[in-house]
Amino acid sequence: MHVQEMTQEECIAIVSNGRMGNLACARDNRPYVVPIYYAFSENHLYSFSMPGQKVDWMRSNPHVCVQVDNFSDQGHWQSVVMYGLYHELPDIAGTKHEREHARFLLQQHANWWEPGGLKPTPQPMTAFPTHLFYRIAIESMTGRRSSER
Amino acid sequence: MHVQEMTQEECIAIVSNGRMGNLACARDNRPYVVPIYYAFSENHLYSFSMPGQKVDWMRSNPHVCVQVDNFSDQGHWQSVVMYGLYHELPDIAGTKHEREHARFLLQQHANWWEPGGLKPTPQPMTAFPTHLFYRIAIESMTGRRSSER
Repeated sequence: MHVQEMTQEECIAIVSNGRMGNLACARDNRPYVVPIYYAFSENHLYSFSMPGQKVDWMRSNPHVCVQVDNFSDQGHWQSVVMYGLYHELPDIAGTKHEREHARFLLQQHANWWEPGGLKPTPQPMTAFPTHLFYRIAIESMTGRRSSER
Repeated sequence: MHVQEMTQEECIAIVSNGRMGNLACARDNRPYVVPIYYAFSENHLYSFSMPGQKVDWMRSNPHVCVQVDNFSDQGHWQSVVMYGLYHELPDIAGTKHEREHARFLLQQHANWWEPGGLKPTPQPMTAFPTHLFYRIAIESMTGRRSSER
């Protein structure tokens, strides 16, 4: 088996079809990585989170890296790495439209109980007003895939 | 569904049973995340890599973060986040024993064709002398899991 670079079109196909990614952020040159649920639209990843470490870190340093992969039954895989910039979408006039867009995209097949969407808590989380929404503007996207050739 | 903190024993069980993790490193306060194949033994993750970006970055900044998760069919999940320090295991007298230990552990169920073990190349990779081995000394380990309660 070999490894090949993926084209931009192949990368976009993997990211468009995916819904879980691995988001890395950094503060004081220390990295942190957590799974996120996302929706891809027009060179942006849209996602949501409870307040917490990753949001604190991305607010202090908006440079992030997101990796999305796809493994097939036959052991084949594709892996896409994106660099991008974090931008929060608060519920205020300037970002209200984009926030609603993010919410719409994420609701297409969202599971709010996935990692990153919840915090340890004694209460059930029955709505998402406590979540904050954000987008990541993708600055670069590269990918590799396994290949028989 | 709720989210609960995991005990150290639960975290170790997930990491021991896992084989793929997401490794984040940082340089100049920029994060980078890639999937790795690993073996866990006595508070260390052992892994291998071709030379490349992640090795270059970890050599310049040994602080890393590794996340390992486990998703069940019923939508339940566990996610463990570890902070640790990168340490290369070159094939020299001082690290030869630990390098052989790493190779032994990884060969138990290694698939050398997984992401991180290969580079895009026109030649098939038929042996692993070109791989370098490393360990990550785990400094902290925390986990969260979904729960019905």
